[in-house]
This record gives sequence, structure tokens and C-alpha cells, in this order.
Amino acid sequence: MFVEGVHFDLGWMTAEDAGWRSLALALGDLAAKGAQPGWALAALAVPKGWTVEQVSGLYSGMHALAGRWQMPIAGGDMSAIDGPAVLSLTVAGRTSKRPLGRWEARPGWAIAVTGPLGAAAVALRGRRAHRVEPLIESGRRLNELGLCCGDISDGLVREMEKFAAMSGAGSIIQADLVARAAGASLEDALTSGEEAELVCVGPRDMVLGAGLSIVGETIPDRAVKLVGASLQSTGYDHFGRAAQ
Amino acid sequence: MFVEGVHFDLGWMTAEDAGWRSLALALGDLAAKGAQPGWALAALAVPKGWTVEQVSGLYSGMHALAGRWQMPIAGGDMSAIDGPAVLSLTVAGRTSKRPLGRWEARPGWAIAVTGPLGAAAVALRGRRAHRVEPLIESGRRLNELGLCCGDISDGLVREMEKFAAMSGAGSIIQADLVARAAGASLEDALTSGEEAELVCVGPRDMVLGAGLSIVGETIPDRAVKLVGASLQSTGYDHFGRAAQ
Repeated sequence: MFVEGVHFDLGWMTAEDAGWRSLALALGDLAAKGAQPGWALAALAVPKGWTVEQVSGLYSGMHALAGRWQMPIAGGDMSAIDGPAVLSLTVAGRTSKRPLGRWEARPGWAIAVTGPLGAAAVALRGRRAHRVEPLIESGRRLNELGLCCGDISDGLVREMEKFAAMSGAGSIIQADLVARAAGASLEDALTSGEEAELVCVGPRDMVLGAGLSIVGETIPDRAVKLVGASLQSTGYDHFGRAAQ
Repeated sequence: MFVEGVHFDLGWMTAEDAGWRSLALALGDLAAKGAQPGWALAALAVPKGWTVEQVSGLYSGMHALAGRWQMPIAGGDMSAIDGPAVLSLTVAGRTSKRPLGRWEARPGWAIAVTGPLGAAAVALRGRRAHRVEPLIESGRRLNELGLCCGDISDGLVREMEKFAAMSGAGSIIQADLVARAAGASLEDALTSGEEAELVCVGPRDMVLGAGLSIVGETIPDRAVKLVGASLQSTGYDHFGRAAQ
């Protein structure tokens, strides 16, 4: 669900950008599970102030991205709203094998990311429309190798908390191993959400074989711990996490 | 998609009622196609002013209805919104045979409804929470008999316009044959949306065999025509439809 003013802002992005971006983020869930996009449903609440061009722009942006996988926007719904626009997307995909769920993560596995993090935070700060590219092909390959992946919708650290909550296996993240996108601070890299990159966990050899950059490992303790002097000094205590 | 202030109003219904009602209306689409409920996804944008009790009440209302078919609310999403609440529901179901689409309607078929219409308009006028019962079992039976059905989400007349737009077959509706719910006017019966009842079309013998009340027939002309002196006098011209 994408809410105007929360997830997108037509003050500094076009409706096309907002449509693209929303569908791209929804497809991030499919990418994380190694699924090929099948179809999408789009429900839209339209504010009175919107123009027909804005509504059709939003759909154009979605169609432009969906077309890459011949993914039909197979249905949906439209309503008026006395408030901000709300776009609700449901996407369905298909995998060749059952993807691992977060609850199946085991302690002692390596944690890796598919690329540098923080690009979304940098784009947001610069009020620059950022056409996220969902990593459908990478996600398929990584899942087929047997890795357990998640999208980074709420930041890397938050993502590892989800793994911990569902599997019981926490994490130690080596902050200095987390590659940063151009212009991104360490805080951006660790906390920026709505990232295109995926985080994957699995046995160390499997992760190395996949060509990913290791940033930490899972542990028997349910906590998510950050290692790195720079972090202690930049005040990451407000996450309520132990810094070593 | 159900928008607070458009589709539900917590000023005179509980959050449980709103949740029930929204899921019931979403299930109306499955009922129309003869599908057994499978699973639902619920995405919710929550206004700052809502209480935890309201959020959980909304889900309770949905769960109470979903439980009838052991239908899991299998996932979803939640976001904040600076505006009215928005609930977006996706429901999936399964049919034993392919249901007929609206585009498959043929001229000369009978049009029938499953029961009296206008109850939703009466409830709305009285600001009375109205727990719509989705006609899942009736819908299954009618589809298995071979009828082509639709839910009445935007009123009977509007529904026949959808049939006309998709099949090329318009309708003649005999207004005096449309049974009215208690307290409903003829206008209510013809235009009230968010009804639980279904409208079905099919060969006359099939419709009679199904035990439905015939209210008109489909015609080769794409127009939707209303027959009944009372209609001409109550000003149905504003629909842009020819009254005979």
C-alpha cells in the first residue's frame, strides 16, 4: 500500500515515477522469493484534486515496468477519497521451487547483500525520483541456489530483526562491511528502506559461491547486534540494539 | 477498496461492522462467479486518530466473516495516512467450472435477481450498520447451472450497463417486476449499490429452472431501457437512458 505523502510525493516526482516506483517496490517481494512476476491488481483511491493525466500517468508508470515481464495489471478498483491518494498493489508470481521462508534461517549462516545500500535515502533527501529496479533475475538465481532472501523495505537492520523474530536467529552485522551507495552515510546504508537490493542468508560456502558480499552472520541469540566503532559514535543506541 | 467516509463511516457503525461489511462486499465478487472463498489479503492505511481497538476491531469483523469458510487472511500491509482510513482487500477463490463472463451474455436471455433490492440504500439512510451476507452458496449453484451472474455493487441498472458494455447486449428492465426490500423505494431497488443480491442472465428456461425472479431481458441493442410509468415520472432520465 502506497500513500501519497508517505510513500510518494507528487510535489517532486511525476505520477509516472510514483506508479513505477510503487510497482517496483511491490515486485521487490517477488524478487526476494525468486518468483517470476505473474499478474498484478491495482486499487487506487483518487483525491478530488487529481487530474485525469495524473491518474493515467500513474498507470503508465506501472505498465512501463510491468511490460518487462509481460505482466498484466489484471484488475483492480478505483474510488474517490477526501485525502491523499492511496495505491494498493497485489502482485502474484511463480517460483520453480519453494523459496525458504525467514523462519528457516539457522544460526551460523552468513548474511549478505546484493549491492550497496542507502540509494533510496539519498534520493529521498535530494527529492529526486528514483526508478527502483526490482532484482527479479538475481532473486531467482539466489533462491535457486538455496539462499533465503528478503527485500529491504524497512532497512537492513530492521530486516534482520524480522529474520530474528521469525527464526529465533539474530544477527551480528559488521557495519564496515556494508557497502554504501554513492552519497550514502553508514546510517543510510543500515536503515534506508525501499531499497532495490536484497539481503540473503545461507551457509557461508553457498553465499560465497553466489558471489555476494558478506556483511555478518546469524547467531543463536535473538538480538540484532551492530559491530563497528563508527556506529557507537553515531548513536545507534536509539534502535535499542546492543553495540559491541 | 473501502474508503472511510465513502464506503463506511465509523460515526454510526463499529469498526467490526466496517470490517465485516468490507469483506462481505469483496466476497460478493466471488459469489457472483460461483467461487468458494480461498484466501484474502488486507492492506490498511490507518489515520493517526484511530485507536488500537479500532484497528483490531476492523480485523475482528473480517475474521468473523472469513471464519465461515475457513478463509485465512493470509497477508497484507499497514501504513499510516494523514486522511481517512483506506482498506484494500484482495480475495481469491476457486470454482469447479469456468464461470461465464459478462461479455458472454447473449440477446434474448432472461435477466433475474436473487432477491429483493434496495436494502443497502435503506440501511444507509437510516445510518444502520447492515451486515451484508455474501451469497456464496447461491452463487455457486447458479453458476453451476450455467447462468452468468454479477454482484450489484453499483446498482441494478448500472450493472446491466456493464453487461451491455462488455457483451454488446443491452437490457429491458421491467421496473414493476423488481422486488423491493422492506422500506425501499423503486429508485432504491434500481440504483442501490453494495447489495448482497446477485443479478444473473441466461436462457429463460434455465433462469426459471433456477427459481429466480425474472425482471427483464437482454436485447441486441446496447442500451439499457427501463419500462414502467412510475419510472418516467420519477425522473430516471438523468441516467441518460431511454425510458419507453
